[in-house]
Amino acid sequence: MLVNCVAYEAGRKLADIPVEAISEHVRRPERLVWVALKDPTPEELAAMQAEFGLHELAVEDARHGHQRPKIEEYGDSLFVVLHTVEQRGEGLQVGEVAVFVGRNYVLSVRIRSERGFAGVRARCEREPELLRQGAGFVLYALMDAVVDRYFPIIEALEERLEATEEKIFAGAPARGIVEALYGLKRELTTLQHAVRPLLEASSKLYGGRVPGVCAGLPDYFRDVYDHLSRINQSIESLRDMLTTAINVNLSLISLQENETTKRLASYGALVAVPTLIAGLYGMNFEGMPELKWSYGYPFALGIMAAIDLWLWSRFKKAGWV
Amino acid sequence: MLVNCVAYEAGRKLADIPVEAISEHVRRPERLVWVALKDPTPEELAAMQAEFGLHELAVEDARHGHQRPKIEEYGDSLFVVLHTVEQRGEGLQVGEVAVFVGRNYVLSVRIRSERGFAGVRARCEREPELLRQGAGFVLYALMDAVVDRYFPIIEALEERLEATEEKIFAGAPARGIVEALYGLKRELTTLQHAVRPLLEASSKLYGGRVPGVCAGLPDYFRDVYDHLSRINQSIESLRDMLTTAINVNLSLISLQENETTKRLASYGALVAVPTLIAGLYGMNFEGMPELKWSYGYPFALGIMAAIDLWLWSRFKKAGWV
Amino acid sequence: MLVNCVAYEAGRKLADIPVEAISEHVRRPERLVWVALKDPTPEELAAMQAEFGLHELAVEDARHGHQRPKIEEYGDSLFVVLHTVEQRGEGLQVGEVAVFVGRNYVLSVRIRSERGFAGVRARCEREPELLRQGAGFVLYALMDAVVDRYFPIIEALEERLEATEEKIFAGAPARGIVEALYGLKRELTTLQHAVRPLLEASSKLYGGRVPGVCAGLPDYFRDVYDHLSRINQSIESLRDMLTTAINVNLSLISLQENETTKRLASYGALVAVPTLIAGLYGMNFEGMPELKWSYGYPFALGIMAAIDLWLWSRFKKAGWV
Amino acid sequence: MLVNCVAYEAGRKLADIPVEAISEHVRRPERLVWVALKDPTPEELAAMQAEFGLHELAVEDARHGHQRPKIEEYGDSLFVVLHTVEQRGEGLQVGEVAVFVGRNYVLSVRIRSERGFAGVRARCEREPELLRQGAGFVLYALMDAVVDRYFPIIEALEERLEATEEKIFAGAPARGIVEALYGLKRELTTLQHAVRPLLEASSKLYGGRVPGVCAGLPDYFRDVYDHLSRINQSIESLRDMLTTAINVNLSLISLQENETTKRLASYGALVAVPTLIAGLYGMNFEGMPELKWSYGYPFALGIMAAIDLWLWSRFKKAGWV
Amino acid sequence: MLVNCVAYEAGRKLADIPVEAISEHVRRPERLVWVALKDPTPEELAAMQAEFGLHELAVEDARHGHQRPKIEEYGDSLFVVLHTVEQRGEGLQVGEVAVFVGRNYVLSVRIRSERGFAGVRARCEREPELLRQGAGFVLYALMDAVVDRYFPIIEALEERLEATEEKIFAGAPARGIVEALYGLKRELTTLQHAVRPLLEASSKLYGGRVPGVCAGLPDYFRDVYDHLSRINQSIESLRDMLTTAINVNLSLISLQENETTKRLASYGALVAVPTLIAGLYGMNFEGMPELKWSYGYPFALGIMAAIDLWLWSRFKKAGWV
Repeated sequence: MLVNCVAYEAGRKLADIPVEAISEHVRRPERLVWVALKDPTPEELAAMQAEFGLHELAVEDARHGHQRPKIEEYGDSLFVVLHTVEQRGEGLQVGEVAVFVGRNYVLSVRIRSERGFAGVRARCEREPELLRQGAGFVLYALMDAVVDRYFPIIEALEERLEATEEKIFAGAPARGIVEALYGLKRELTTLQHAVRPLLEASSKLYGGRVPGVCAGLPDYFRDVYDHLSRINQSIESLRDMLTTAINVNLSLISLQENETTKRLASYGALVAVPTLIAGLYGMNFEGMPELKWSYGYPFALGIMAAIDLWLWSRFKKAGWV
Repeated sequence: MLVNCVAYEAGRKLADIPVEAISEHVRRPERLVWVALKDPTPEELAAMQAEFGLHELAVEDARHGHQRPKIEEYGDSLFVVLHTVEQRGEGLQVGEVAVFVGRNYVLSVRIRSERGFAGVRARCEREPELLRQGAGFVLYALMDAVVDRYFPIIEALEERLEATEEKIFAGAPARGIVEALYGLKRELTTLQHAVRPLLEASSKLYGGRVPGVCAGLPDYFRDVYDHLSRINQSIESLRDMLTTAINVNLSLISLQENETTKRLASYGALVAVPTLIAGLYGMNFEGMPELKWSYGYPFALGIMAAIDLWLWSRFKKAGWV
Repeated sequence: MLVNCVAYEAGRKLADIPVEAISEHVRRPERLVWVALKDPTPEELAAMQAEFGLHELAVEDARHGHQRPKIEEYGDSLFVVLHTVEQRGEGLQVGEVAVFVGRNYVLSVRIRSERGFAGVRARCEREPELLRQGAGFVLYALMDAVVDRYFPIIEALEERLEATEEKIFAGAPARGIVEALYGLKRELTTLQHAVRPLLEASSKLYGGRVPGVCAGLPDYFRDVYDHLSRINQSIESLRDMLTTAINVNLSLISLQENETTKRLASYGALVAVPTLIAGLYGMNFEGMPELKWSYGYPFALGIMAAIDLWLWSRFKKAGWV
Repeated sequence: MLVNCVAYEAGRKLADIPVEAISEHVRRPERLVWVALKDPTPEELAAMQAEFGLHELAVEDARHGHQRPKIEEYGDSLFVVLHTVEQRGEGLQVGEVAVFVGRNYVLSVRIRSERGFAGVRARCEREPELLRQGAGFVLYALMDAVVDRYFPIIEALEERLEATEEKIFAGAPARGIVEALYGLKRELTTLQHAVRPLLEASSKLYGGRVPGVCAGLPDYFRDVYDHLSRINQSIESLRDMLTTAINVNLSLISLQENETTKRLASYGALVAVPTLIAGLYGMNFEGMPELKWSYGYPFALGIMAAIDLWLWSRFKKAGWV
Repeated sequence: MLVNCVAYEAGRKLADIPVEAISEHVRRPERLVWVALKDPTPEELAAMQAEFGLHELAVEDARHGHQRPKIEEYGDSLFVVLHTVEQRGEGLQVGEVAVFVGRNYVLSVRIRSERGFAGVRARCEREPELLRQGAGFVLYALMDAVVDRYFPIIEALEERLEATEEKIFAGAPARGIVEALYGLKRELTTLQHAVRPLLEASSKLYGGRVPGVCAGLPDYFRDVYDHLSRINQSIESLRDMLTTAINVNLSLISLQENETTKRLASYGALVAVPTLIAGLYGMNFEGMPELKWSYGYPFALGIMAAIDLWLWSRFKKAGWV
C-alpha cells in the first residue's frame, strides 16, 4: 500500500507525485523524493525497483521480510533493515522497516508494523533547514524514531522484572513467578534480536569510512548509536538480573520445601505423641494402677495436652510453625 | 559416483563431456567445466585430481571427509567444505559437500548427503546471464542452496522448543521434558558445527582481500554471510533459551516436590487424627463415661468426621490438596 | 541553578562574572571560564548554549539526562557524561554530571547529585600551576573526583558481601541471605552501569589520537583510566563471587533440608517404636503371659525406654540429632 | 637417551652420526641434521646446546619440562613445545615434545611420552622429495603426528559422554553418573591445555609474517591449524554438553526424589488406613454393634482390603507406584 | 625502611652509597644505582623522588599502595606495580612491589610483603655479565622472582581442589566441602587479581614498540609472559573445575537427600507394618478365632517378624538400606 509519495526541493515539499513520475524527479539532483510503503504487494515493489533502480538482492530481502537488522551498501545507495517492536496484547509484535536510501531519494517499506512514521515526515516538513540536509537526514530521522520506540518497551520489561522481584520476596506462588521470568526472558530475546545487529551496523555510519549518503551527519548517527548502546546495556543487565532471579527463586523454592517439611513434621509430632500415650493406656496389662484411678482418664488427657503445649512452644520458638 | 560432468561456454551448456576430456576443456579459458560427484571412490577422486590439477592436501581432505566447514585458498583456486544437515527419522544427519573452485571449473563432491543440487544446476542453466559470471557464481549458488536448507532445520528446532515450553508450564511429565531439552541441545550443537565455522570463513569472500574467483560478486557472498548470521543468531538464542528452560524446569520440579509433600502430608493428617481419637477410646481406663453412652460410638465417629472435614477445608483453602 | 561562574587567567581567579559576560571572556584565549550548574532549568541551559556556542545534540542530552556515561567530540570541544553514585539511605542514588569542555572553558552540569565539586575548584584555585594547564586539567580534576567517589561504594559492597558470606556459613536464616545477595547484585549492576562505559571511553583520552583539549595530560588521564580499571576489576570479582555465593547458598539450603529430614525422622522413630510395643500389649490374645506378670507394665515401659535410649545414642553418633 | 642422530642431504639419509659430529654437519648448509632425544639427562641437553648453539632460555624450558604448548622464535630458529596426550590405564598421561628447529637441523626432545616418532622419520625417509623441503617440513610432520594422536582421545571422550548420557536417561545410579561426568570434565580440561595454546600459536605459521624455517609450507601448517580447530571445536562442544548433562542429571535426581516421595507415601497410605480401621474396632465403646456380628471380624478385614485395593488402583493410575 | 642502596659499574658492585649520593651517581650514565625500600615512610619516598626525579603520579601510587598490577611509561622511565602473594596461616596475603626503572637506576619498593629479593640481588652480583645488561635486566629479574613465587601458590590450590574432590566422592560431610570450595574460589580470585592485569601489561615488553629500558631483552620478557600465561591458564582451569565441583556437589547433596528419604522410609515401614498387625489383634470383635489359639500370640509375633524379614530383604535388594 502506498502511504506517501512526495517530492521536495531545498527542504520544502513540492507536491505529492504519482509513482510513475518518481524516476523523472530522481534524475534531477536538486530534488529529494521520499516514498513510504506499507505491507506492499510484489507488484508495488517491482514498480519501485524500476523507478528507483534498486538492487535485485535488496528488493528480494524487502519482499521476503524476516531479515535481521542490517545496513548494507549497494554502490552509492544504502539498504537498511530495522525491526520495530510493538506491545500488542500480552506479547511483543516484531515488524520490519526496510529503507532504501540513495543520493536524493528515500524509500521506506513498513511490514507488519502498526505505527507509522507520519510524525517523522511532519517534523521534517516543519523544519526545512533539517530536511535540506538530504536523504541521509531522513534516514537518521527514521532510525531515531524506530530506536526511540524501543525505550518504552525496555522500560516496561524493567518494571515487570521489578514487580516480579517483589513477588519473589513477598512469597507469591512460585509457579507464576517462574512463568513470568521465563516470559520476560523470551521478550528480552526478541528485543535483543532487534537491537544488537543494528548496534553493530550503525557504528559504521559515523566513524572511519562512512557511506556517502551519511557523510556530513556524524553527530546525528553517533547519537543513534549512543541510544542503541544504552538500550543494549539495559538488555544485558536485564538478562543478567533475570538469570540471577531464576536462581534466587530456585533457592527460595528449596527453602520453602524445607520450611514446609518442618511445619508438617511439627504438626505430625503433635498428633504422634498423644497417640503413643493412648496406646500405652490401651495395653492390657493387669497391673496398671492408673487405669483404676478415678481421675485416670482426665489425667491421661491432661498429660497429652501438657506435652503438646510444651512441644508447641518449642516449635514456635524454633520458628517451625 | 559421477553425477554430472558438463562443459559450458558463455553461460550455455555445450555438452556432457567424459571425465578424460576435462583437462582439455579446462585449458580453454572461455569454457566452464562443472562436475558433480557423490560419495566418490578414491579412484574417481584421483582421476579428478589429475584432470583438474587439484592440491594433494585438499584432495586428501575430501577423501577422508569429517572436515569442519572451511574455505581455503590453494594458489588461484579455492577449496570449500560445507556441511549439509538433513532431518532423517528422529535425528539430524550431517553430510559434507567439498567444492573445488578454479578460474573456470567447479568440482562439487557430495558425501553422506541425500539431497543433491540438481535444482541449482537447473536454475543456472535456465539463466545463462547468471552462469556467465563464471565459477564464482556457481560457488555462490551451491553455498546459497546449502545455507537455505538450514532454515527449515532451525525452524523445526524452534518449534520443538516452543512445544516443550508449553509442556513445561502445562505440567507434563518432567522426565520427558528433560530428555526433550537435552535432545534439542544435541541437535543444536550439530547445527552449530555446520554454521559457525562457515560464518567466519564466508566473511572473507566479500570484504577486504577477496579470492580471485569470488571477486566481482561481493553482494552475493554478503547475502550468504547475512543468511548465516541470521541462522547463527537464532542458534544463539535457542541455546540461551534452552539453558533457561532447563533451569526453569528444575525450579518447577522442585516446586512440584514441595506441592507433593504438602498434599501427602494433608492426606496423612486426615488419617492420623482419627487414629489418635480411636486410640483414646481404646484406652482401658475404668472411668471413661463416653464408653458407656448409648451413642458413644457414633459420637466418636462423628467427632472424627467433623475434625477431618474442618482439616480438609483448611487444607483446601491453603491450596494444599 | 547557577553554582559558580568564574573567569581565570594564568591559573589565578580573576572574578566571579555574570552569565552574560561569559561569551566575551571566552573570546579571549588567555582566559579560562569555569561555570558550574546544578539541576538547571531549560532556560539556564539555553543561556549557556548561547554564551558558549554549544552543540544542539549535546545540550539536548544534558537537558534530558538519563544518558549513559560517554565522552563525545563535537569539533574542538568535548562533551562528557559521568554518573555519580551516592549511598542514600538503603540504596544507591545515581546522578549525572555533564561536562562541556572547550579550548578555554569548562561548563559542568550536575543533575540529581547531592555532593558538589567545591573541593575540586578550591584545590585548583590553591594550586595555580595546575589550573594554568587549562580546561583539560579541570576535566581531569572533575573526572578524578567522580571516580574517587566510586571507591567507598565498591568497598561498602565488598564488606556487605563478606558479612553475608559469614552469615551463610554461620547458618543464618537463608531467606534473608538470599535477599541480601540479590540486593548486592542489583547495586553492583548500578555501579557497573556507571563504570564500564566510562572505562571504555576514557581509554581514548591518553593513547593514540587524543582530543585537543586533553593533549599534554596523558599521564593524568591514564591515571583516571587506571582507577576505573581497578574498580571494574573489583566489580567483576564481586559479580563472580556473588554468583558463586548464590550457588553455594543453594547447596547449603539443600543440605539443611537433608539434615532436617534426618532429625525429624529420628524423633519420629523415638515415638513410633514405643507405639508399636504399646500396640503389641494392646492385643487381645488370651495367652499373653506378660500381661499377667506383676511387673509386666513397668517391664513394658522399661523396654520402650531402653530401645529409645539405644536409638538415641545411635542417632547421636550418626550426627542425625 | 639418544634415540636417533642422522644427517641427510637432498632428502636422503647420509649416515647415523655421532653427537660430536653434529656441529660440523650443521655448518654445511646443504645438510639436514635430525636428532631425537627421549627423557634426556641434563648432560645430554648441554651437549646438544653446545653442538647446535641453542638459546639458554629454550634449553632451560626443555630441561624443566612442564611448559605450556608454544611456538617461540629465537632469532632464526624456532622453539616449539607440544603436549602429547596418551590414554594410560584409566586416565590421560600428558607428555611433552620440545622441538628445536634451525635452518638445517631439527632436535626433538620427548619427555614422559611413551609413543615415539619412528613412523614420522620412516615416512620422511621413504619420500625424499618431502624431506628435501628441509627442517620446516620435519617440524610439520612432527606436529601433524602429535595432533593426529589427539583425535582418538577426543573420540574416546565423546563416546564416554554418549555412554553416560544413555545411562542418565536409563536411570542408572546417579552417583556413578556424577562421578563419570566429573571425570570427563577433568580429562577434557587436560586435553584443552594441550590444544588451545597450540591452536593460537600455530596460526602464526602460515599467515602474515611467518618464521623463516616455515616459509614455503603455508598449506601444510594451515592443515595442522585446521585439525587443531576441529579438535578445539569438539572440545568446546563437549564442555558445553557436559555442563548441560550435569544440570540435566541434577533435574533428574530431583525428579527421582519427587517420585520416591510419592511412592513411599502411597505405600504409607496402604498401611495407615487399615491401621486407622483397626484402631476404630479397638475402641472400648459398649454399643458397637459390629463387634457382635458373627462376621464382624472378616467384615473389617474385608473393608481394609477393599479400601487398599481402591487406593492402589488410584495410585497406579496416577503413576505413583 | 631502606634495605639496600648500591651503585654498580660494568656489572660489578662499586659500593653501598648513602641516599644523598644517589642523584650524583645517576647523573653518570655508566653507573647503575639499585635501591630497595621496604614499607617506606612518606619522607623516605619523598627523598627518593627528589634523588631520582620520579613522576609525582607514580610516587603517589607507590605511597597509597592498593594499586592493581600495571606497567606504565613516564617518559623514558617505567613504573611497574607487581602483587606478591604469600601463604600466611590459613589465607593468602597480598603485598605490592612498586618498581621505578630508569635508564640507569632501579628503585624497588616492597609493601606488606614478608619475603624480600635478596636472592635476586645476590644472583645478579654473582653474574656480572647479566647485571651489565643494565636496569632492564634487573626489572626482568625482579619480575621473574615475583612470578616464580606464584607457582607454589597455584599448586597448593590445585592440591586443595584435588583433596576436596576426593572428599566429595568419598561422601565427606557436605557442609565442610561447600566451605572449602568457596574458600578456594576466594583465594583463586585473589591470585587472579595479581596475575591477569600483569599478563596483559607484560605482553607489551617484548613485541611491537617496547619501552627503551626493556629493549634488547625480548627473550627474557617473553619468558616472564610465558610463565604468566601458564599460571593464568591454570587459574582458568581451576575456576572452571571449581564451578563444576560446586554443581556436582549440589547434585550429590540432592542425591543423598533422596537416599536418606528412602532409608528412613524403609525403617518406617519395618515399624508401621507390625503396628498395623498389632492393631488388628487389638480389635474387640467377638469372633476372632486367632485370639483363642494357644499359640495365637507367638503366631502374631511370628507373622510380624516374617513380614519384616521379607521387607528387609526387599529393601536390601533395592539398595534402600
